Amino acid sequence: MNAKEKNLHRLFNPETVAVVGASNNPSKLGFHVMKSLVTGGFAGNILPINPKGREIFGIPTLPSLHEIHQTADLVIVVVPAPHVPDVFRACAETKAGGIVLITAGFREIEDPNGSRLHDEIKAIADKAAVPVIGPNTFGIVNYATHLNATFTPEFSQNPRGGIACVSQSGGIAHLLSFLAMRENVGFSKIIGLGNRLNIDFPEAFSHLAEDDATRVLMCYVEGVDTPKRMMAALRGLGKKKRVVVYKTGRSRMGDRASLSHTGSLAGNHEVYLGAFRQSGVLTVDSAEELLDTAKALDRCPFPAGNRVSVLSAQAGPGIAATDTCAEVGLALATFRAETQAQVNACLPPLALRTNPVDMGPAWYNADALSRLIRAVMEDPGVDGVLLLTMFASANAAIVEGMRETLLRWHQRKPVITCILAPEGIWDSEVYDLEERGAIVNYPTPERAARAFANLYKSGKLGRKQREIHDKLQGDKPWR
Amino acid sequence: MNAKEKNLHRLFNPETVAVVGASNNPSKLGFHVMKSLVTGGFAGNILPINPKGREIFGIPTLPSLHEIHQTADLVIVVVPAPHVPDVFRACAETKAGGIVLITAGFREIEDPNGSRLHDEIKAIADKAAVPVIGPNTFGIVNYATHLNATFTPEFSQNPRGGIACVSQSGGIAHLLSFLAMRENVGFSKIIGLGNRLNIDFPEAFSHLAEDDATRVLMCYVEGVDTPKRMMAALRGLGKKKRVVVYKTGRSRMGDRASLSHTGSLAGNHEVYLGAFRQSGVLTVDSAEELLDTAKALDRCPFPAGNRVSVLSAQAGPGIAATDTCAEVGLALATFRAETQAQVNACLPPLALRTNPVDMGPAWYNADALSRLIRAVMEDPGVDGVLLLTMFASANAAIVEGMRETLLRWHQRKPVITCILAPEGIWDSEVYDLEERGAIVNYPTPERAARAFANLYKSGKLGRKQREIHDKLQGDKPWR
Repeated sequence: MNAKEKNLHRLFNPETVAVVGASNNPSKLGFHVMKSLVTGGFAGNILPINPKGREIFGIPTLPSLHEIHQTADLVIVVVPAPHVPDVFRACAETKAGGIVLITAGFREIEDPNGSRLHDEIKAIADKAAVPVIGPNTFGIVNYATHLNATFTPEFSQNPRGGIACVSQSGGIAHLLSFLAMRENVGFSKIIGLGNRLNIDFPEAFSHLAEDDATRVLMCYVEGVDTPKRMMAALRGLGKKKRVVVYKTGRSRMGDRASLSHTGSLAGNHEVYLGAFRQSGVLTVDSAEELLDTAKALDRCPFPAGNRVSVLSAQAGPGIAATDTCAEVGLALATFRAETQAQVNACLPPLALRTNPVDMGPAWYNADALSRLIRAVMEDPGVDGVLLLTMFASANAAIVEGMRETLLRWHQRKPVITCILAPEGIWDSEVYDLEERGAIVNYPTPERAARAFANLYKSGKLGRKQREIHDKLQGDKPWR
Repeated sequence: MNAKEKNLHRLFNPETVAVVGASNNPSKLGFHVMKSLVTGGFAGNILPINPKGREIFGIPTLPSLHEIHQTADLVIVVVPAPHVPDVFRACAETKAGGIVLITAGFREIEDPNGSRLHDEIKAIADKAAVPVIGPNTFGIVNYATHLNATFTPEFSQNPRGGIACVSQSGGIAHLLSFLAMRENVGFSKIIGLGNRLNIDFPEAFSHLAEDDATRVLMCYVEGVDTPKRMMAALRGLGKKKRVVVYKTGRSRMGDRASLSHTGSLAGNHEVYLGAFRQSGVLTVDSAEELLDTAKALDRCPFPAGNRVSVLSAQAGPGIAATDTCAEVGLALATFRAETQAQVNACLPPLALRTNPVDMGPAWYNADALSRLIRAVMEDPGVDGVLLLTMFASANAAIVEGMRETLLRWHQRKPVITCILAPEGIWDSEVYDLEERGAIVNYPTPERAARAFANLYKSGKLGRKQREIHDKLQGDKPWR
């Protein structure tokens, strides 16, 4: 690790955090940053810097960075742009670790002073090997240490999990966090890259590659300044982490807007997609699909193949999932003879006993249901299961009935579910099964099927990429 | 109206409801049906019929339909299949209005007794002009009278609204209801058609065409026995109501499963889609899109054209929405000169001031924001607005700031939004704006854009269909 990389590690894992521009005034971002740090549960030192105030959130303020006794591992900056160069110089002089620069008004404004300031602070930071997240960012969150270094205290509501969200848009990062709260999806980190003064995707990827808390990188990309570096970083990452990317600018209209927004080389979307594919990275087409896919990547083993079994408590959702499977490149497994015999033994002679299976008639018999699910899971011709059921209080006991079977299955094959009920019926059981890794749950059969397909595709892309890598290294035969 | 149609009206608007097979045992559906009726708030008479019991949910039971003093307008039947013919005869003899037959075990089972029973009860019902919802249905709900005639008491949790859900699958109807609860979408009726003894889609459509509480029909279709009747009914309906259909069986695999499930003419999906289009009906490809579209149809005026303006508090979600617009056939409006001048006056000289508009820099200035939104809405070259914003407590006041502008705009153009925050920040403001018809809200920018496109397409299909209809009637010139 070079000096900047070491400082980036300090930035994400600080003992001491200083907030330059901390405020008691709720109309200021400096207030909300303090609120995030204090209410988020961060256990380290929090030092509000403000020459005017006396106390903020019960913590005595200091007039400047030079007055603090400890060295700040992380300095969060929210003062107006013209004051930022002075703050940067103080950071360099006091050997601060890294900076989260929330202030806007740099390269993204038309006024040439913005670009001039950008260049000035970049020179200071680079010379001192100080990594800078931003400018024009909401900040970062590290869930492992309850560090919420953003102006959004609510980010602390997300449960902890294995997904790191790396976003080129503050809006999309907020969207993903708020959607994740609704669906109980856990994060390891959130990183708002902002204008990427000297920390861009490649630097974030290198850092996250070594982050034990992160299993999955969920990335939102508008445009990339240094595509070759980006792709090289992704290839290195692919051996250690799972990665999914939502790249906007698919349309000419959207691409033009991206270009204006980030000032990056947006350009031909197909070139991007090809480059991601070559780097072994799956791309998706919406924020919802991005989160759905990251959730499956975080919690499931990769399926060995694309042969799914659709087990549904009602025919309709089973048919809907089957349609989606066909559209997204999944195949419906053909059961081996003994599996089919066991399924037939669990169900009356109704129509849907092959695949999809309408489990409805076994629905009030937890034992038959369990035997059925188990028989299908144990079939070597089945690479994973889509398990679907709706219903409410009349069937409230059934998830409990399937529970043991689902838990006994040791995650050798993915079990992706759509178990849906009104609030209070199954939530706690479903969350428990999710937390124990037995299932991954989605609100519709179609989204469950699409998540399965993306899990399969991601595994396949990664395998291919690892094979290419191994071939280039010459240490494994090419198959 | 013929006798069966009159009885269907009684079935949906009963004064007296009898439950044959009512039970005190929570493992029986007859218990859950009673619970739905009693706890759902139905104000009419509820008569549990059970020769063994004395009291169910505090209501004295009666031994048979013959013993009741009133005529039952609706008889809900949950006794085992072999007893059903006797119950039907009793309904005919006592001049009951209609039947909801929850019991399964008729045409859908392989045992030929199932088909025989089906034919037997159909003959009884048809002779007596008694309409039958089912067999093998979860039932019906009429939100106008708090009548929950199903085995799912939770259906009563859905708010009241203008959407009638007509489904060929109980699972999909439950799915739609549970999703709707999460997103505050209101229903007028839910109808589970089941095996369609003598009430099929056309009969349901004719009934709903005259239902004042229903503005939108949201239909899930697997297969249709009498396609010509179905399409004729849809064409009649199209002049009075808005209709959206989710038809599964798109794939060969899914189609085969549909066929097994419903025993209906599934077959070529493209033929279905063409027939729906010719009937002026929009089709969609997932349960989520079905509900999203129904919600927009219920609450928005049709846009005059496909020219949208994307107004976003953050660039990223604006770009994501722009991409989706391009994919689903929407155009980004070009502002007239005076609109652009007003937009420019509200925003600093940043990049995204044309369309999409990044409103971020005006975000803390409710007045500028309101002027901006208003200028865009008043532009005759803009057919509707996509308004997007995330953020949390740091911006909690802003929805309040836009409120007056959004309310003053009298629904002349659709305003479709993605206003997302953690729970407790904006929910009540957003719900209030939705209830007053000022906006329709979605959880992602992409879903908001797709809903706008479907609203536009539905309006266009309906217009075309009305023109064909008028031409055939000879009462309007063909353009």
